[in-house]
Amino acid sequence: MAELLNQSCEACKIGAPTLSNEEINNLMSEITDWNLITEPINQLKKVFNFNDYQSGVTFLNSVANMADAEDHHPEITLEWGKVTILWWSHKIQGLHKNDFICASKTDSLYLEN
Amino acid sequence: MAELLNQSCEACKIGAPTLSNEEINNLMSEITDWNLITEPINQLKKVFNFNDYQSGVTFLNSVANMADAEDHHPEITLEWGKVTILWWSHKIQGLHKNDFICASKTDSLYLEN
Repeated sequence: MAELLNQSCEACKIGAPTLSNEEINNLMSEITDWNLITEPINQLKKVFNFNDYQSGVTFLNSVANMADAEDHHPEITLEWGKVTILWWSHKIQGLHKNDFICASKTDSLYLEN
Repeated sequence: MAELLNQSCEACKIGAPTLSNEEINNLMSEITDWNLITEPINQLKKVFNFNDYQSGVTFLNSVANMADAEDHHPEITLEWGKVTILWWSHKIQGLHKNDFICASKTDSLYLEN
């Protein structure tokens, strides 16, 4: 996880290759408890739980700030006590290394929360 | 809309009646451009669009603050340039007047944004 955590997103252009299954499997081993969604496209999903509403809001804001700094924006769903995050690369409709970098940074923000 | 906007949520207990179809139809006429979702349960849904990421984040926070003040918490989904809001009453698994009050307040916050 440390290695991904120290990287930044690179520009991902339309037409860039999505990761191979082997690359995905290798990168999945570097992040903790993320689910690999495969339908309709490959995405990384994780649910983060909280004991109150404001802690979830604070976490959402920290992820949104990181996302904007990386210029890579996930889908974030806020409910009471729960924040669900989906990372994928819109331009290639699938997974790029950027998504694993951001998943790792998301975990780090949760631990800091 | 003004009438709903000036009301506050009342406590909604498990077992409280959901609104009748007639009540829903009447209240739908008091809010603007909300979609009535009926499956799997009745919910109010609206998508709010923005020209940049931070404006969506700011709007999400204003809705979250209002929700916490009303002690009634929607599902809010943040994407780049888009915030999707779903109001329903978890305890009765359907719609309560509280949801229409909060939908009206959500619209008001969007206009202030």
